Amino acid sequence: MPKPNVINASVSPKGSLETLSQREVQQLSAAGSGSVYQLFRQCALAILNTGARIDNAKTILEAYEDFEVRIHQQDRGVRLELLNAPADAFVDGEMIASTREMLFSALRDIVYTESELDSHRIDLSSSQGITDYVFHLLRNARTLRAGVEPKMVVCWGGHSISLEEYKYTKKVGHELGLRSLDICTGCGPGVMKGPMKGATIAHAKQRFAGGRYLGLTEPGIIAAEAPNPIVNELVILPDIEKRLEAFVRVGHGIIIFPGGAGTAEEFLYLLGILMHPDNRDLPFPVILTGPQSAAPYLQQLHAFVGETLGVAAQSHYSIIINDPVAVARQMVEGLQEVKRFRRERNDAFHFNWLLKIDEGFQRPFDPTHENMAALQLGKDMPRHTLAANLRRAFSGIVAGNVKDKGIRLIEKHGPYKIHGDPEIMNPLDRLLQAFVEQHRMKLPGGADYVPCYRVVT
Amino acid sequence: MPKPNVINASVSPKGSLETLSQREVQQLSAAGSGSVYQLFRQCALAILNTGARIDNAKTILEAYEDFEVRIHQQDRGVRLELLNAPADAFVDGEMIASTREMLFSALRDIVYTESELDSHRIDLSSSQGITDYVFHLLRNARTLRAGVEPKMVVCWGGHSISLEEYKYTKKVGHELGLRSLDICTGCGPGVMKGPMKGATIAHAKQRFAGGRYLGLTEPGIIAAEAPNPIVNELVILPDIEKRLEAFVRVGHGIIIFPGGAGTAEEFLYLLGILMHPDNRDLPFPVILTGPQSAAPYLQQLHAFVGETLGVAAQSHYSIIINDPVAVARQMVEGLQEVKRFRRERNDAFHFNWLLKIDEGFQRPFDPTHENMAALQLGKDMPRHTLAANLRRAFSGIVAGNVKDKGIRLIEKHGPYKIHGDPEIMNPLDRLLQAFVEQHRMKLPGGADYVPCYRVVT
Amino acid sequence: MPKPNVINASVSPKGSLETLSQREVQQLSAAGSGSVYQLFRQCALAILNTGARIDNAKTILEAYEDFEVRIHQQDRGVRLELLNAPADAFVDGEMIASTREMLFSALRDIVYTESELDSHRIDLSSSQGITDYVFHLLRNARTLRAGVEPKMVVCWGGHSISLEEYKYTKKVGHELGLRSLDICTGCGPGVMKGPMKGATIAHAKQRFAGGRYLGLTEPGIIAAEAPNPIVNELVILPDIEKRLEAFVRVGHGIIIFPGGAGTAEEFLYLLGILMHPDNRDLPFPVILTGPQSAAPYLQQLHAFVGETLGVAAQSHYSIIINDPVAVARQMVEGLQEVKRFRRERNDAFHFNWLLKIDEGFQRPFDPTHENMAALQLGKDMPRHTLAANLRRAFSGIVAGNVKDKGIRLIEKHGPYKIHGDPEIMNPLDRLLQAFVEQHRMKLPGGADYVPCYRVVT
Amino acid sequence: MPKPNVINASVSPKGSLETLSQREVQQLSAAGSGSVYQLFRQCALAILNTGARIDNAKTILEAYEDFEVRIHQQDRGVRLELLNAPADAFVDGEMIASTREMLFSALRDIVYTESELDSHRIDLSSSQGITDYVFHLLRNARTLRAGVEPKMVVCWGGHSISLEEYKYTKKVGHELGLRSLDICTGCGPGVMKGPMKGATIAHAKQRFAGGRYLGLTEPGIIAAEAPNPIVNELVILPDIEKRLEAFVRVGHGIIIFPGGAGTAEEFLYLLGILMHPDNRDLPFPVILTGPQSAAPYLQQLHAFVGETLGVAAQSHYSIIINDPVAVARQMVEGLQEVKRFRRERNDAFHFNWLLKIDEGFQRPFDPTHENMAALQLGKDMPRHTLAANLRRAFSGIVAGNVKDKGIRLIEKHGPYKIHGDPEIMNPLDRLLQAFVEQHRMKLPGGADYVPCYRVVT
Repeated sequence: MPKPNVINASVSPKGSLETLSQREVQQLSAAGSGSVYQLFRQCALAILNTGARIDNAKTILEAYEDFEVRIHQQDRGVRLELLNAPADAFVDGEMIASTREMLFSALRDIVYTESELDSHRIDLSSSQGITDYVFHLLRNARTLRAGVEPKMVVCWGGHSISLEEYKYTKKVGHELGLRSLDICTGCGPGVMKGPMKGATIAHAKQRFAGGRYLGLTEPGIIAAEAPNPIVNELVILPDIEKRLEAFVRVGHGIIIFPGGAGTAEEFLYLLGILMHPDNRDLPFPVILTGPQSAAPYLQQLHAFVGETLGVAAQSHYSIIINDPVAVARQMVEGLQEVKRFRRERNDAFHFNWLLKIDEGFQRPFDPTHENMAALQLGKDMPRHTLAANLRRAFSGIVAGNVKDKGIRLIEKHGPYKIHGDPEIMNPLDRLLQAFVEQHRMKLPGGADYVPCYRVVT
Repeated sequence: MPKPNVINASVSPKGSLETLSQREVQQLSAAGSGSVYQLFRQCALAILNTGARIDNAKTILEAYEDFEVRIHQQDRGVRLELLNAPADAFVDGEMIASTREMLFSALRDIVYTESELDSHRIDLSSSQGITDYVFHLLRNARTLRAGVEPKMVVCWGGHSISLEEYKYTKKVGHELGLRSLDICTGCGPGVMKGPMKGATIAHAKQRFAGGRYLGLTEPGIIAAEAPNPIVNELVILPDIEKRLEAFVRVGHGIIIFPGGAGTAEEFLYLLGILMHPDNRDLPFPVILTGPQSAAPYLQQLHAFVGETLGVAAQSHYSIIINDPVAVARQMVEGLQEVKRFRRERNDAFHFNWLLKIDEGFQRPFDPTHENMAALQLGKDMPRHTLAANLRRAFSGIVAGNVKDKGIRLIEKHGPYKIHGDPEIMNPLDRLLQAFVEQHRMKLPGGADYVPCYRVVT
Repeated sequence: MPKPNVINASVSPKGSLETLSQREVQQLSAAGSGSVYQLFRQCALAILNTGARIDNAKTILEAYEDFEVRIHQQDRGVRLELLNAPADAFVDGEMIASTREMLFSALRDIVYTESELDSHRIDLSSSQGITDYVFHLLRNARTLRAGVEPKMVVCWGGHSISLEEYKYTKKVGHELGLRSLDICTGCGPGVMKGPMKGATIAHAKQRFAGGRYLGLTEPGIIAAEAPNPIVNELVILPDIEKRLEAFVRVGHGIIIFPGGAGTAEEFLYLLGILMHPDNRDLPFPVILTGPQSAAPYLQQLHAFVGETLGVAAQSHYSIIINDPVAVARQMVEGLQEVKRFRRERNDAFHFNWLLKIDEGFQRPFDPTHENMAALQLGKDMPRHTLAANLRRAFSGIVAGNVKDKGIRLIEKHGPYKIHGDPEIMNPLDRLLQAFVEQHRMKLPGGADYVPCYRVVT
Repeated sequence: MPKPNVINASVSPKGSLETLSQREVQQLSAAGSGSVYQLFRQCALAILNTGARIDNAKTILEAYEDFEVRIHQQDRGVRLELLNAPADAFVDGEMIASTREMLFSALRDIVYTESELDSHRIDLSSSQGITDYVFHLLRNARTLRAGVEPKMVVCWGGHSISLEEYKYTKKVGHELGLRSLDICTGCGPGVMKGPMKGATIAHAKQRFAGGRYLGLTEPGIIAAEAPNPIVNELVILPDIEKRLEAFVRVGHGIIIFPGGAGTAEEFLYLLGILMHPDNRDLPFPVILTGPQSAAPYLQQLHAFVGETLGVAAQSHYSIIINDPVAVARQMVEGLQEVKRFRRERNDAFHFNWLLKIDEGFQRPFDPTHENMAALQLGKDMPRHTLAANLRRAFSGIVAGNVKDKGIRLIEKHGPYKIHGDPEIMNPLDRLLQAFVEQHRMKLPGGADYVPCYRVVT
């Protein structure tokens, strides 16, 4: 990679960081060193790379190894000094407004995350405490809007998909946008960008000014999947599990497009939750969709669910092939059901308090080789627990594929080993194999995919 | 063409037509018949076809020959009933907001145009009277915003260009948008859409909410170049000359992209005006630009200007090849000059009163075979008059290519004949020939272009 | 009166006069001389006197006899130069925003009034034409807001009332404001200010930001009743009859407080219209109200209506003594009826098209001694015509009391003579006598009232 | 006092309490009992009494002894049920918007105050920690607006003043409002209302929509000085000292009108701080003003400062008699100085971080008889410490006059005894005596004032 263009600049915050106490400014300055600094530097670099087409955290970090961000304290508040920052983030020497906004969103979230943990308020030892933490992070980011009717549609799917699939996500987003729905994604490229782009154009056509394009990410993923510039609200949750919980509590319905291991992880997480008996009566529209060419993929995923989690699991979603209008219409109907339900139960529109999430889905999973090897994937386990463990397996594979820490682990110890009953492992192996063949594990055009795992039956 | 999907619907106005007097409603209802009706029906059909990819007025009119629009009077005001309207203009039975807005913009402009002509106010016999008329039409459409600094950039160029050229216009629009400039075009596809699309994304990145995408059109052109859906202000001027005057009085700078006969017409109109001695000191930034592949075309156009209008004419614009950032920066500098000048002269920012436009450029030119044949194109004429007549020649060619009336004339009488001195006719012939070879006269992919003119030396 | 403080200043327009055509600017400059100039100068002076406590046009005009307003043309538009203007209209050398706004409202209305008359559009020879004219004047002033539910309450009554009555009007305005209703008055002091002031405080309490305080006036009355500073929309209609029509077409309900001859004029105008057979089914809430001390006055007025126009006339209003809450509640109910009715008939909320106003009420009445003497006031006339003529009689008395022209006529020819049947003249005489005794004909504290009329039976 | 009209109602929050976590809702419900409940009930009652004219906490509490407020938890959030609430707070059964807003401001502040104290963040043992706490309370109430230029003028003075003095405060507020300044007061009647009322009208005249009327109060004072309805931002600080610190950190300049012991307390607090050597160069405009009739009072206060704190103390303020325009102009100049200074030092506009406040002024003073008797008021003390102790003496007198707890203490133990050197005690006694004679200690029209203190030399 050639030496990229860089620039030095000084920026002041806009938004919630404009009014900081002197102590908060000191804390922020302190964030200019130590582990919090590394985290912030990494997120900042990803954000300044918005629009760039690199999905390997290591590559970006290495390309801008001279990049530094210094936090200066002044009486008025905080100021960021950027050294050797990507020049594309600036126009005639001035930082692009959305980039500046996202930069301070990152600072806000990282500092708030830390400072909340320091307070007495947060109790990460209980399920309710974790949910409360997620709520506070989202509210602090001003993501929760009281009284707004349910219309936040989460779109999941790969950040690296074929052009045909990408165009399809734009069309679906366009139909959602024509119906004035908002979009929430993981905020990177691919499926995370397509629906937002389609919705942007549709919102403009409908003269709908307040369209929301909410990006939920986490420090380990942001470098690989830099926020696309359409995102107008960015929240950095502290880890994968908090991010997943944020998706299902803040979204009113979910559309799943083709993707790779990350998408499978999200899908299994969702199914595991919706299969919980407490959530039986809770309306939650879920649609799997893709263009005609993705039909085999969707069928394969559907079959995998059937073989491992059973027919009951299959009842929690519907599949629509190549029909953006039908997807949008069915989602609108689903959202009306959600609205009716919450109104009846007097539940908030802005946060799905009633959704039961088992602690097993909330606890962070650290994909060490040991933990990956220890995962129980038995055919006779409760389906619920099986879903949770399958989710963990895919989570580990994502880490090994794109996350800085995961990549380093694989470089050191070789591929993860995943064990289990053949009735589970065989479908899993087939699914993963298909992902590889369909180039769903890595950017097409990159080098051949070298699996970071081995399925052992 | 297969039978298109149609729909019946009833819509109420939004915006300036919400408060009509009973007499105005009666006048509108009266517009439901006669020649005004034909005009409105044609514009309405074009607007309902927004986004469609047909650039032949006749084709659209024939595809929807059953389309009817009825104007109903009720105590509250006016209501439109649409029969056999293009179904794509609706989402789940409701008309898309921007389409509805444009539909009533058309009604507003057509009716106002008529009613102003009926009043004593308008004096079309004097140059000043015509300018006044253009001003009133624009003001009535709420296009003139007092006190806003000069930032309206007019983009001219072909509605049918290559994908590479289209992408280039988007990039230029993106750079203009990053600098918070507004875009004004002829409001159709191609160059009329690309810069608006690029600017839309850039405005979103800069969190610039009030971006203006102004489309200026006229009844003869709108069917061939249906407004693209990004246009958020649409004005239908009564004829070509009023539309051209609107462009140069409301725009603060002009960028010319590759195009065909229409673009040449616009370019010659602009040169003719800027060459007027009264306009000598008036700053008016004009940039010709295109991607690398368009360099020969731009050079050809530049040479044609030199050969026919002389070196002095060439001093009124600059040429930038394949450098969107340079285009945007030079435009920003030019606009600062415009602002400084108007402030000094105490001239309005929203309307270029000081620009002298000779009556020759204001009077409508009716491209009958007789008028086309009678055009004086002599090498010894004043350059100024020559520019005006060359403009008329291209205007006629545009009519013969895409306008309903022109096409019918050519079908009946065969191609126009254009006479003149060889020193003028030869460069003209070469330019037109090049347009044909570069597929700039018609949509690529359409049938072979059959010229609607013959150059006779 | 001592020499008042004066100031010279130059002001630029805000609002609709910011975008003028060069011809319009020329017309305005022309308004710097001739009769239009006198009109504008007089209105401007009244507006600059906002808040002052003089109700005699002559006195104000004489106090500021050096006052001049010059209209300057510049490329950008129009600019006003004020010489010897009342200093109270300025804060630290800068004109108060609302005063500046009203100043340009006056210019707008006076110029538009003239320019409309010049156009073909206006037909003052027909009832419908006059209504159309009123509509255009109001729309040009941006007074008509489409789609807003009926909530404009007109308050009529004296500009010179007792402190107790003034406080009562504030209380009623407060109760109206608490129910988010808007206020329209003749825009001067007294009853024209009290309800607006009460509503302002109530709107603030209800956090209702868009409260409208609409003042309708005319050139002859504005000097005597300078707009109070709460008025945030000012419209100057060309004469008394247009102003009265504006009140009843733009207001959705009317409250009548104690007042003098002007109030009686308005009340008789309203009754005459509501008694028209065409208006039988039209809901139009009218309430007479005042504090306990005003009870005799209200009974007297009520009796006068009974004696002259009959019991049927009395059915068009209700009387509420000393109960602001009851007034507001009854008005809210009445407005709901108006809303229901207009919705059923598909009539606009913003202009009462369905109200039939006889031409007799629309034609200007010029209160010369001859015209006053010729008024038919017979007991056997149609009640309808009688109401119209009684209205004219009171109109003349108002002119003789406070209008510049009327005062000069009385100074020259002595009091008006009013003839008629004793059955009409006796009640009239008693009513007028009571007005004098209650100091309702002039400012209390002023010199003794010298009647400008003589009732002759 | 007759049995007042009461009403039962249920209200939902608006504003920051709309998005609460379930745990926060539980905490709030818990606030439905215990000492926090008593606090909230008392504040709620005061707010519902907005506009009433009782300044004795006990009287209000006794008049509505059946008043109850219940906090209900529902999935959606929190809901308040009010029993036997003052009927004047409602219009046709619905709570007035501003009252509802203030009610939830009180809930917000009381709960936040508690919950912040529970967290690790707050360190009340250090001066900086207390300042930080005040900052957080103000920010949580959304009182701090970044980037707004200095224009918050604090007005101090009595809640019970003569009509002439009240009118004067309105005039000063009017002049401040004409210059687009904001007003901050203790939010009750009298001087706390007059300037806001004057500014409201002036802001309306200047078409200045975003006028701020900030009320800072504390639980012990709110019942006696119920927020006036013009207040559009209400913050309840936990105690007197936090409230005083909020005034001087959030206000950019201070105007002191005539008042009683509370005003003297505020004045001495301010002088004590401004006399601190660290604050020497800090611009802080302070103006003492009143109508002509208040001149002796102002001179007396001025003399008291001279006799006790010395000539240096007198240099921190200026005195303007009966000239609202001069007051406003001098304040505008002072604010420009503040702006220049903060810009130079890069200090925030929204919070005066650079102002040094000694811990002696920050620590709460509990006015028990013991503490009051122990106050050191010696002529040879540092002036700084003397100012602090004099402030405490007046604070105790305020408590004994109007605060629930203070009144009960006096009822039980008799008047406070205040000791000190004759050089201090004599001027103090004279000042207090003058306050009594001028009816500045209690509402005029109430019973004779029985002093709650005795000065002992």
